Amino acid sequence: MNINLAMVGSTGAVGQEVLKILNERNVKINSLKLLASKRSAGKTIEFRGEKLVVEEATPDSFENIDVAIFSAGGSISKILGPEAVKRGTVVIDNSNAFRMETDVPLVIPEINPHAIHKHKGLISNPNCSTIQMLVALKPLYDYSKIKKIWVSTYQSVSGTGTKAIKELKELSQNALDGKELNPKVYPKAIAFNVLPHLDVFQPNGYTLEEMKMVNETKKIFEDEEIIVEPTAVRVPVINCHSEAVTIETEKEITPQKARALLDAANGVCVMDNIEELIYPTPLDVAGKDDVYVGRIRKGFIAQNALSMWVVGDNLRKGAALNAVQILEYMIDKECIKW
Amino acid sequence: MNINLAMVGSTGAVGQEVLKILNERNVKINSLKLLASKRSAGKTIEFRGEKLVVEEATPDSFENIDVAIFSAGGSISKILGPEAVKRGTVVIDNSNAFRMETDVPLVIPEINPHAIHKHKGLISNPNCSTIQMLVALKPLYDYSKIKKIWVSTYQSVSGTGTKAIKELKELSQNALDGKELNPKVYPKAIAFNVLPHLDVFQPNGYTLEEMKMVNETKKIFEDEEIIVEPTAVRVPVINCHSEAVTIETEKEITPQKARALLDAANGVCVMDNIEELIYPTPLDVAGKDDVYVGRIRKGFIAQNALSMWVVGDNLRKGAALNAVQILEYMIDKECIKW
Repeated sequence: MNINLAMVGSTGAVGQEVLKILNERNVKINSLKLLASKRSAGKTIEFRGEKLVVEEATPDSFENIDVAIFSAGGSISKILGPEAVKRGTVVIDNSNAFRMETDVPLVIPEINPHAIHKHKGLISNPNCSTIQMLVALKPLYDYSKIKKIWVSTYQSVSGTGTKAIKELKELSQNALDGKELNPKVYPKAIAFNVLPHLDVFQPNGYTLEEMKMVNETKKIFEDEEIIVEPTAVRVPVINCHSEAVTIETEKEITPQKARALLDAANGVCVMDNIEELIYPTPLDVAGKDDVYVGRIRKGFIAQNALSMWVVGDNLRKGAALNAVQILEYMIDKECIKW
Repeated sequence: MNINLAMVGSTGAVGQEVLKILNERNVKINSLKLLASKRSAGKTIEFRGEKLVVEEATPDSFENIDVAIFSAGGSISKILGPEAVKRGTVVIDNSNAFRMETDVPLVIPEINPHAIHKHKGLISNPNCSTIQMLVALKPLYDYSKIKKIWVSTYQSVSGTGTKAIKELKELSQNALDGKELNPKVYPKAIAFNVLPHLDVFQPNGYTLEEMKMVNETKKIFEDEEIIVEPTAVRVPVINCHSEAVTIETEKEITPQKARALLDAANGVCVMDNIEELIYPTPLDVAGKDDVYVGRIRKGFIAQNALSMWVVGDNLRKGAALNAVQILEYMIDKECIKW
């Protein structure tokens, strides 16, 4: 296949990571078009030895583009996504815009690649915190149905974008210097603080970030009965989300069994030896493709309960890598056209 | 009553907080003896206009001392605690040394002050993360028995002591300057990172910090059936612990009812209005006496489930303030002698 690819949001944190990953994985493409907002148009970015000029994304940008990866926020996806599809482009969208629409596959390639074949031009990349949780849980789910999931997240600022990374660094320096903290990106200072607030609050008291985990889990696992109880929290970490996860399963899964199942799975790395103080942290996992799992232990909360600690690079597996893996699958299976 | 008080660990983070709180609350004492390690002996600390010289803590330091507050770590408590008791001193111990011993009351004054009366010279202050969780849950428990608690903590470094605060600041500055991070206090760098590891690992895969929450909750609530499922995590925050808590109760407690119950309770402050983006964070709560509760919402995980976000100053209510409140109760009820 000879793919003409476009990247919408090519100057952002995820866009930059997509370009890096296309290179690292040597994804075969015919041409790459870099798209962004008007503000970023004219910038040049090097890709495979060529200097590419970033263009403003408009509906006509998608003429002759086979696949476009979108990572420029939900409102851009809502406006330009359908325009791209109208022009015959398959959109792999990293935003929340279409995820819960019935005819839009929501895909983690390790879990439900079959869903890709049903696409009608739009494919959604799940939320970062959902992806890493489900990559870690799928091998367990395949052994025994999971009935309930409790999850508390420790989410880095890179998911918000480069401006949030800048804010964390600036406010941290201000705090160390005893200066005032004036947050702009987040509603409260993120330096040396934690905020139980990601994305907008919903009428039921949960945040949209939390409800993404509740609803996307059901769609990806194709299991309307699975219950997720989430608390999503932003922490002063540059990159990589961490999650404290407890599950209740139908059959018992011992910690030993869980380690064996995860060891045998794609995309997961078990990093779990408490005697040697081995467990994953964000600084260990940044830049890694796998989702790392540690602190696997039998839970107290139910007869068949298991607790664990899951860390993933939210820019990579949580966003850019997952999108590129969807692209690779479509190239491999030649299922781009619909 | 005319109390001669000693503070063991008077130069540490909790010791300093105890002195501040004795002053703020105008606790009536006859004399104050400042004790610490040999290394700190000779330092002077001002208290109520007087310059007091810190003395090395030895068994004989407790002659003529009515009450001693210990906050110098478990091994010091184990050595000097019984020596103090032998000399007629009541020990209020902030360490883990005696908490689970049958004849040692484990006390949160808002919850089980009656236990103080049974002391035999030793009274234990519970673990910081347990105290704030139970202060927030007790008013709910009194309305409906709580069957299960899931809790993930976001714990500040101040609980480890002043050297950990220094390490967080130094490593953060090094990270901002692009220098190497060489952790000494924690096994991994705490700057811009989170560590799912507080206190030592137990054979069951939980940390001692987590097992404190499991076991102390049963003892303080006098309920052997209550189940706690904890994950304790250190975050790069100077002071104040946060907790994501979900409970399953026997009777339904609606969020409205929970807010009313907490509003009416001592030691709790409801800070919960998501429409106005009002919820507690560590930077909001540092220096406050109350435990702050926000993000109260109906849980998904069980018919009668409730989730919430609990923030408390771990140096104050989590340690120093709780100890001083125990002292105040003993003075008020004249129950120092046993």
